[in-house]
Formats: sequence, C-alpha cells, structure tokens
Amino acid sequence: MSNADFIRGLADIGAWGVSFHDDDLMTFGAPESQRRAELDAFKKVLDETGVVCSMATTNLFWHPVFKDGAFTSNDRNVRRYAIQKTLRNIDVAAELGAPTYVLWGGREGVESAASKNPADALSRYKEALDFLCGYVNDKKYEIRFALEPKPNEPRGDTFLPTIGHAMAFINELEFPDMVGLNPEVAHETMAGLSFFQGVAQALWQGKLYHIDLNDQKIGRFDQDLRFGSEGIKDDFMLVRLLENSDYNGPKHFDARPYRNEWGNGIWDFARGCMRTYLALAAKAREFDQDPRVKEALSAASVPELAESTVGSYSTATADRLLNEQFDVAALAARGYANEALDQLVIDRILGIS
Amino acid sequence: MSNADFIRGLADIGAWGVSFHDDDLMTFGAPESQRRAELDAFKKVLDETGVVCSMATTNLFWHPVFKDGAFTSNDRNVRRYAIQKTLRNIDVAAELGAPTYVLWGGREGVESAASKNPADALSRYKEALDFLCGYVNDKKYEIRFALEPKPNEPRGDTFLPTIGHAMAFINELEFPDMVGLNPEVAHETMAGLSFFQGVAQALWQGKLYHIDLNDQKIGRFDQDLRFGSEGIKDDFMLVRLLENSDYNGPKHFDARPYRNEWGNGIWDFARGCMRTYLALAAKAREFDQDPRVKEALSAASVPELAESTVGSYSTATADRLLNEQFDVAALAARGYANEALDQLVIDRILGIS
Amino acid sequence: MSNADFIRGLADIGAWGVSFHDDDLMTFGAPESQRRAELDAFKKVLDETGVVCSMATTNLFWHPVFKDGAFTSNDRNVRRYAIQKTLRNIDVAAELGAPTYVLWGGREGVESAASKNPADALSRYKEALDFLCGYVNDKKYEIRFALEPKPNEPRGDTFLPTIGHAMAFINELEFPDMVGLNPEVAHETMAGLSFFQGVAQALWQGKLYHIDLNDQKIGRFDQDLRFGSEGIKDDFMLVRLLENSDYNGPKHFDARPYRNEWGNGIWDFARGCMRTYLALAAKAREFDQDPRVKEALSAASVPELAESTVGSYSTATADRLLNEQFDVAALAARGYANEALDQLVIDRILGIS
Amino acid sequence: MSNADFIRGLADIGAWGVSFHDDDLMTFGAPESQRRAELDAFKKVLDETGVVCSMATTNLFWHPVFKDGAFTSNDRNVRRYAIQKTLRNIDVAAELGAPTYVLWGGREGVESAASKNPADALSRYKEALDFLCGYVNDKKYEIRFALEPKPNEPRGDTFLPTIGHAMAFINELEFPDMVGLNPEVAHETMAGLSFFQGVAQALWQGKLYHIDLNDQKIGRFDQDLRFGSEGIKDDFMLVRLLENSDYNGPKHFDARPYRNEWGNGIWDFARGCMRTYLALAAKAREFDQDPRVKEALSAASVPELAESTVGSYSTATADRLLNEQFDVAALAARGYANEALDQLVIDRILGIS
Repeated sequence: MSNADFIRGLADIGAWGVSFHDDDLMTFGAPESQRRAELDAFKKVLDETGVVCSMATTNLFWHPVFKDGAFTSNDRNVRRYAIQKTLRNIDVAAELGAPTYVLWGGREGVESAASKNPADALSRYKEALDFLCGYVNDKKYEIRFALEPKPNEPRGDTFLPTIGHAMAFINELEFPDMVGLNPEVAHETMAGLSFFQGVAQALWQGKLYHIDLNDQKIGRFDQDLRFGSEGIKDDFMLVRLLENSDYNGPKHFDARPYRNEWGNGIWDFARGCMRTYLALAAKAREFDQDPRVKEALSAASVPELAESTVGSYSTATADRLLNEQFDVAALAARGYANEALDQLVIDRILGIS
Repeated sequence: MSNADFIRGLADIGAWGVSFHDDDLMTFGAPESQRRAELDAFKKVLDETGVVCSMATTNLFWHPVFKDGAFTSNDRNVRRYAIQKTLRNIDVAAELGAPTYVLWGGREGVESAASKNPADALSRYKEALDFLCGYVNDKKYEIRFALEPKPNEPRGDTFLPTIGHAMAFINELEFPDMVGLNPEVAHETMAGLSFFQGVAQALWQGKLYHIDLNDQKIGRFDQDLRFGSEGIKDDFMLVRLLENSDYNGPKHFDARPYRNEWGNGIWDFARGCMRTYLALAAKAREFDQDPRVKEALSAASVPELAESTVGSYSTATADRLLNEQFDVAALAARGYANEALDQLVIDRILGIS
Repeated sequence: MSNADFIRGLADIGAWGVSFHDDDLMTFGAPESQRRAELDAFKKVLDETGVVCSMATTNLFWHPVFKDGAFTSNDRNVRRYAIQKTLRNIDVAAELGAPTYVLWGGREGVESAASKNPADALSRYKEALDFLCGYVNDKKYEIRFALEPKPNEPRGDTFLPTIGHAMAFINELEFPDMVGLNPEVAHETMAGLSFFQGVAQALWQGKLYHIDLNDQKIGRFDQDLRFGSEGIKDDFMLVRLLENSDYNGPKHFDARPYRNEWGNGIWDFARGCMRTYLALAAKAREFDQDPRVKEALSAASVPELAESTVGSYSTATADRLLNEQFDVAALAARGYANEALDQLVIDRILGIS
Repeated sequence: MSNADFIRGLADIGAWGVSFHDDDLMTFGAPESQRRAELDAFKKVLDETGVVCSMATTNLFWHPVFKDGAFTSNDRNVRRYAIQKTLRNIDVAAELGAPTYVLWGGREGVESAASKNPADALSRYKEALDFLCGYVNDKKYEIRFALEPKPNEPRGDTFLPTIGHAMAFINELEFPDMVGLNPEVAHETMAGLSFFQGVAQALWQGKLYHIDLNDQKIGRFDQDLRFGSEGIKDDFMLVRLLENSDYNGPKHFDARPYRNEWGNGIWDFARGCMRTYLALAAKAREFDQDPRVKEALSAASVPELAESTVGSYSTATADRLLNEQFDVAALAARGYANEALDQLVIDRILGIS
C-alpha cells in the first residue's frame, strides 16, 4: 500500500495522527532530490486529509549495517553513521511538526554477553543522546525524545530492557528534561511485568511522553496484537489510568494485523484497536461513577493510601512514632476486601450488574 | 538451629560475614529485656567467631499485619507501624556496625490492580524512605540503604519490580545518595532479564551497594538455588564483572538448600556457593589473561566500544558529521566474530582448551 | 473454619459439590476410631446440606515424608507408604461416592536433574498407577483416576508437567481406560501454554475426567486466582468449549482468595468464581447465536475445517491428489478475516454491540 | 552460499550428515526438469563428500499459502496442496535414503482461539498423518515420521505445543508405530519445560526418532543458539542421557549463527556446536566413572529408584501393604543429599576437582 493510500485509509476510519520512520517515508539511500519529492508528497497528503504527524523516529534496526547495534555498535563508524542518520531525520521531523522523536534501540544489545562491555555501551548510548539533545537545542526545534524500552528480540538481551531501566538511564543524561519514555504494552508484557504499574511510575516521574498501545501474551515473541485483544483486564486498568491522568499525548496503536489477514482485514484491525479503547474508556468512567465501586474502594481503604503516613522527618516526629503503641493483632486481623472490589472490575468489563 | 550454632557453622566453613533481619535475632513482640538479652548473645558469638555483621534488614513480610503491604499498605496504621519497626531495627544495625540496611518490599504490591492507586503507593514509599534517611542523618549513623527489587511473589505484582524501576525511583527521593540497590540473581531472572546487564547498569550509575547471589530458572517461583547451580554462563559473566569492578561490598549468598535436604546437606550447600564463586573468579582471571581471548575481543571490536563516538556537541562537530560519507555496504558486510568469542567463554567455563 | 461450617457456607452460596483430600477430612496419623468419627461427621453434613462429594484425593505433598516425592521418591519405603495412604483413602472415596480420584503429583519431580533417573521415575509412577487401578478393580469400586499435571512448584521440574505429557504417559499404563486428566487453568498457564487448546485435546482424546478452574498469570508462581479474574478471553473460550462439549463432570473451582482477604471476603471470592463462570456461559450462548458471528465464522472458513481433506488412504486417492493442479498464488492471496471474528469475541466479552 | 559449498564446508569440519527441506533443494514452483537437475546436483555432492542425507522435511511454513496453516488450514484446498507437496518430497526423501521424515507444524495454530475448532484441527492433522503413512506403506519406503513440537511462533499458539502433546496425539493415529518425535531444545525450553525430562519420557515411550540440538533462553522468541552456549547444565544432562541411551539416530544441530555473524563466523559456529557436544560427552563419561559420584548417587538413593515398589497387583500384595507399619517420622527426617550430588555435576562441568 502506498503511503498516500495508507494515510487516506486512516483518515477514513477516524484516526487523528500518524507516525513515521525515515525509511517508510523516503527511500533508503536515495538521492536528496528523490527524498525531497517523497517528503513533499507525504506532506501534501497530510494537508489534504488533516491527519497530523504526531511522532517521528529513525529506522536503526532494519538495515544489516545495524546488525551489531546503532548507537552501541562495536564499530565506531556504524555509531557515527547512526547519529548522522538520526540528525538528518530530526530535520524532517521538525519540518513535519512532530513534537516527539522516538528512539527504539532494537539492535542495542547482545547475544553473547562477552561481546560488549555494558558500561561502555551505556556510555556510548548516553553520548549519542547528549549529542542529539545538543542538536535539537542548537536548532531550536520543539522536539522531545522518547525512549522505547524492550527486553529482547531481535537481540538476545537489549540494553534498557524495561521502563525502569530507561528512566534510570535518563537521569544520567546531560539534558534529562528533554528525554522521556515511549512505553509499549507488548514490550513490558514480554517480561511479565505489569505495564499498568510501569506506566503509572512513568507518569509519577513525569516521563510519559508517548505511548504505544497493542497487546501481547507474556513470555513470548513480540506479537504486536490488536489493542484490547489479549490482556483485557490490564488494558482496562491502563485506559482508566490514562483517561484519569494529565497525559495528553497521542494514543498510538503500534500493532499489526494477524499475519493470515489480508485486504479489508487490516481496516477491521485498525478499527478494532480504536473501538476497544473507546469502549474501555466508557467503562472506566462508569466504574468510577458507580456508588458500589466507591463503597468497595472505601472498604479496601484505597483512599487511605493517599494520606500522608508520617510527614517530613523531624526528631520530634520520630520520637512520637517510636513511642506509639500499635494493636498489631487487630491490624493483622482486618481484611482488605479486594475480592469484592476486583469482582466489580470484572463485572464492569463484562458489562453485567 | 540456634543463631549461635549457625554463626559458628558459617565461621567453620570460612564465611566472613552474616546478615540478619530483626525477627531472626530477637523474638517478635518480646519485651525489651528479652530482646536485649538475645541481641547481646548474638553480639557475643560475633565477637568469638570474628564473623562481622555485614547487613541488616527488617522483616516486613512474614507477619500477617503486612499482608497488604508495609510502607504501602492501604492502612495508615500499618504503614506507621512498619516505619516504627524499621527505625527500631536501624538502631540495632548501628549497634552491630552494619554498613548497609536492605529494604526488600516483598509485600509492597497488589493482586488486584484496582486495590491501590500506584501513584499514591509510590508517594508513600518515597515518604517512608525519606523519613528513614532523615532518621539515619539525625542519629549520625554510618548506614546506607539498599533497595531489593523483585517482580512478584508473594504479591501478584510488586512495586519497583526490577533493578531499573528501583533506580529510577531513587532519583525521586530526598536523599538519593543514601539509597542504592541490593539486586538479587533470582529476582531479576524471574522476569527473564539479564542480571549481568542489570548489575552492570547499577555499577555504571554508582548504585550497587550490596548484592544477593543465588540462582534461578526464568519464569517461575522464587527458587533461591545454590549460587552457580543453574545459569552457569550468566554466573561466570557476573563474577567477572564484580571481580573487575570497584565493588567492594559483600558477596552475600541469599540462597536456600533444596527442600529435600537435611542435616549436613545445608553445609554442602553453603560450601558449594562459595566453591563455585571462587572457581568462576579464577576462570574469569584466566579468561582475561588468555591471548586468544584478547585476539577474539579485538576481532569483535570490543575495545572499540570504549572509544568516544562523536564527543560533546558543538555546531561544528554536527556539521562535520552531517557531511561525512559512510560506505554503508562495507559497514554492513563486516562480521563481528561473536561466535568464536563466545566459544572461548564456553571453553573457559568447561575448562577445555 | 470447621469442615462443617465450610460445607454449610458452600451450600448457602449454591455450590453443588465438594472435594476433599484425606488430611482435610481426618487428622493425619490419628487412631482409626478418631478418623471414623471425623468421617461420620463429614458424611452427616453432606447429608444435611445435600452437597455431594464430587472428587477425592490423597495429600501426598504436605508432610515432609514426601519431600523427595511420593510414588517417585528415591526411598522405596516412602513410595510404599504413599501407595498405602492412597489405598486407604480410596476406601473413603468409595464410601463417600466420589466418582473421580485425583492424583496431583506435586512432589514427583527434582531440583537437581541428576538426583533421579527419569526413566526409573516414570516406571515407578506407572507401577503405582497400575497397582491403584488393580485395587479399584479388585474392590469393584466405581472410581476413575484423574492425573493433574503441573510444570513446577514446589519442585523445580515436575514429572508429567503438562496435559500432553500426562496423556502420553497414560497410554503406557496397564489400564489406560481407567485414567484420565484433571487439568488446571493455573498449571498449564504457568508454562504459557493455551489451556483452552490443552482441554480441547483432552476432550478430543476422551480424557477430560475432571477440571480445576481458577486463574493465573503466565510465567510465575502458582497463583490460584479467582476464576475469570485474569485471562478473561481464554476463560471465555474455555467456558464456551466446556458448555458446547459432552463433558458432564464437575466444574471445580480450585482457587484461593487473595492473601490479604479475610472474613466475608472468602465468600465474595467463591461467589465471584461462580458468577463469572455463569456470565461467560451466557455470553458463549449469545456468541454462538449471533448471526454476525455465524457470518464471520464463515468468512474465516471455520466450518470448512470440519470437512475431510483427503479421506482414507488409497493408491487411487493419492494418485488423484498428486495430479491435482492448485492455484497457489490465489490460495496465498486470500485472507482469513480473523480480526473481524476476534473483535466479535471481544465485543461479546465486553457486552457491546 | 550454494548447497554444494555448504555441504563441502560441512564435510570439511567433520559433519556426518545433512538434512534438507524441499525448497532448499529444489526451486519452489520450478518445472520438473529444473527440479530434477537440482536434485541430481545435490546427490552428486553427497556422493563426492560422503555426507549422508540423514533427514528430510517439507517446507510448509515459508510460503504465504500456508499463512493459516498447512494440514490444519481452514481452506481445504490449502490442506490438499500441503499433503500433495509432502507426498512429492517423500519420494525425494526415499530417493536420497533419508530414514526419517520430520514434520514441524510451524503454521498449525492460531492467533485468535475462535478461528479454528481445535477438535477439527486435530482431526485434520490426524487425517493428514494417516494419509502420509498410508503412502509410505503403499510405496514400501523405509521411512518413519518425526513430529517436531513447538509452543508458539510464528503462530500465537501452536497445536501439539510440547513433546507430551505430540506423543499423546500419536496414540490416536492409524499407524502410531510409524510416527515418533523430533524434539528441539529451543522449542521445549521456550515454555520453560525441562527438555532433559521431555527427551527422557520420549525415550521411555520409544518415541525418540530424531533430535534437534541448539540452545535457548526460557520465555522468549525462538533463538536457535549454538548448542551448549546457554543452558550448560541442562545440555550436560541431555548429552549424558543420549550417550547412555540406545538412541542411535542423528545428533542434528538445528541452530543458527548470531545474526551479527558473517563469513568464517558460521564455521566457528558449526564447529562450536560439535566441540561442546563432544566435551560434554567426555565429561559425562568421567562423571559416571567417578567413585565420588557413585557414592553421592548412593547417598541420594538414586539406584533405589530402580527397584520395584510393590510389583504387580494382587489381593494378597495389597493386604500385606495395607498392614505394613511405617516409621513416618524417621522417613521424614532423612535427607537426600542432593546438594552434594549436584555440586559434583557442577564440578565436572567446570572441570574442577
């Protein structure tokens, strides 16, 4: 399918934005004049359809030049080429008005642990990020970077494998405020981690810059399933979290139709992603407005977790706490009524009452 | 087995230090006089044997009072009690000279995602940590805290599930320099993540304060197997990393004998942990001194990853890079000779040449 | 809670049957007279409440005598004791009218692969099963055995880890028609296998004798969650399969309340299991009667899979097939419309239209 | 690389046999004359090098015609075409003298569970197998079939996902004695199952017809790593099992070089597979001859597991057993000395003493 047909199709089913990586848009290795023409054609379709360019990224994983990594390839020239390719595409992103630039380090990893000193790899990763931030600052672009963590595939073990590792890494950068996250359902779920909790931590740390919605079974290859087609309960909690948060970036469906799909099936797939998201968002509102839910949250002491435990430290506060008497047996005997609360979640998902 | 017999047994097989949690040492809920006597008895055995107290921790997971969490229980009184219990044991840790205080939040999590607002949970977690740091500063204790991440078990999903999430969280604390990590082989491995890479990132970020060595198969219950009994290659890489690093904290074997073991078997187990660690350390030295390994590392361009890629950003550097011509086809065609390098790792582990 | 209160509570919430293992019912190691009295008390409550005894089993996993296994312990006396304990409880099962006797070999496995010759272990397993079948035949009891597979926990690796391994093993027994399966959602899911497909194969082979319904996340400890609380889509497909099959054994909820639950929470939990099962069964009927579903199944050629491909072998049939011309390109180009069909599954689960 | 160069390269590094699938050998869809020429060229190189054709298989997974399955595609014509393609290649296998014909049903599965009735799928699978066996019998070929199970990838959930499920299925076939297994390290390990135990059960049931050796981490995409490069302990136990068994089929290395490998690296890889296999085989012999190992096996009562527990059933035997008195406390108190035994395994792997 041509890019133009693809964007027109998206517009037809009601999509608001589209993302791209450089090699989707402009032929890899083509002369500048051809790349310019391809880019202009793309911009024209955006204009015609009103679809916005919500995110851009560099393809640093498909071409065999990146088989040992891009920013962390053992070959210095590959690393330099990867940064050059990214700088060039940042110019394109700026021209298209993409506010977020995603970096998925799909090839930044190893099969044999001895094949890279991980400290060197992290230092080179940081060096690349610092350079890219320097460029954006220099050019006065309004662009923020979003790292997309993934535990493995195509590499045996990827650097920055989870939301946590990526956020920890950002703290070591020269411009930590310019770099956040683009977490993806499938990637965090591959490691059996709770995507809901990971996104919640990213929000809590102010680092949710973009999000990739799809679906996945734990502990297997990257499936990129239709959003809402697999982990329905997790997806409900995620949608409720996003809808109740101040996140206002794109809800980006980075998924793929089943491989035995064809023709109209890809639009069934795209519509399904949006349909289920909207249905879950409506259910989240119903859930939060249901008086039985409020009662169940209260029985589970959920609101009490928002109360400060001890406040800021002072010697006096510590003394008071040390002298307090607790009825440990009584505290141990109370229940938390989580089964009833969780059944209300299931009831809402199933639409039964 | 009594604490005294246990420590004497450890001394006999050549252990240097021992760790404790409060309820191991002093009877839970006993009057102060009894606790004092139990503590004095413990100190006496340490003195007699020369075994040092290398780490202390609070048991915030065994007693049913903590069934919904400790620092993040929905019940504010449970949270207050958990902090009180920890403060009391920090005094004991200081008296015993333990330089590191481990916090494993085994109960800080959920089964039902709706049962805690994760942002509230993280805020309460931070509040507790800030308070504990305040106390240590106030008392002028020489103690640092080490968080021990774990993805699940006994809770369905734990907050701060991995090395990464815990390091990211530390950055939000009031005293981030007082808090680091106590990663554990089994915990990171449960999620299928590379413990080697996680520890390397912790070292790179200056956050490896303590380490728990044991073994584990991916994707199952917390096995706490004898160190070196399962992931031999990962263990080799880990030992090499630790031995070549500036980490000088304890190598803490936090493992358990097989459950069908009995009597002398537990000493077979303890000796085995140390025996395999030392054997792998010797093999790591041989590996690093082997000229064939140096050659193979060079063929894989491993040393080249230590070279700066582009240096700090400047407009001139960026311009130069943007104008550089790369022979992409040639860069894509080169191999990285990782199979030969990795076989040398296997050869060294097997002791064949 | 006493057994009597437990059964009365189950009767109150509408449960039809109850299962037991010997040590639940009669005190382990107690004199015969006490065991008789305990058994009579149990029978009396069953009579009063009308709750039937739908299944019986032996506890061969709790007592430390079984720490190395029961039928496959390396100690021959432990193996003999395990068979004796089972024979005795088969008499009880017969007295209580339990038609199915479950054997969960929770301790039949290893941590160290060298600690048992697996061929010997399987031969001892078979020997025990053959003996138990011989006893049941000799006594003319109306009892069938159901093996409950599990991949690990508490052992590192269990023998007969999945539905498949257990069915394959049954084929080697002296009385294969007396032995079938009791698959459990959590156990098969721990290994990331599709429980739905496993149960379907067991039905196809005529081996579904009993079923344990609960819930579980892939790749972690045995969670025994409330049925329908986790893998909602898999649960829907499972309920549809059971309801459309000729399986008429018990739907046995072998689950546990969350561990922070208490008091009435356990009844919330038990009610939830049944509530969600019934809701999914109603949704399965709606799904199968929905004309859009019939159309989507047809578009996906689902009914065509019920048609014979080639029939029985004959030389003539083979010749005809070898001479047939296929339009491979056309066959490759068709789609299977699975996204639309799958979205109808999700729509039915969510109750949207 | 041409087939000729590949076989000559294998001969140079000492390989005994080679396997093929039809599309490797003969161009897909080419006219008969071209296919004949390609086949003759292949036979010539086999003759020249002395390399034997140890196994053949059909490619029923690469071409998009198989995107919904081959023997279990919902499209009856695809199913017929898949059987036709296999029959044709069975003739080639017979001509090349391949004693084993492998069937890996990589596409036989689903992403959406509703898209196939699994009972229909298993019936069609059986129908195909019965037909293939009929053909081999009719032609009087000396060929046995070996099913290769895999839990997922490229499909979301594959039919016959493990060694166990495949063996159970074989029992339902018309000619069960003509069909066995080709288990693969990577496939069983993906599901976290013990490959060692699976192969042991296959041997115990007389169903190990062929074996695919490679390596894999649990719970991730199909890695096909160099044999011996990952699960060293499992690999040691596997090699010991094979070497001590009566299995005399090929040891088939079905692995791939790391994807950043190139040029000579693929021979490093192939040599490494064989080198490590032979090293582990030598270590297995040393292990079994070591008097300390014999002592440790005896302390763990390993030989006692080979002793009959109760023998065949008779009323008299049952009566005797029911009247036997066991000292349960003493049986519970004994240890099984598995830690010492397992450390000897590790010592042998590491080559330390």
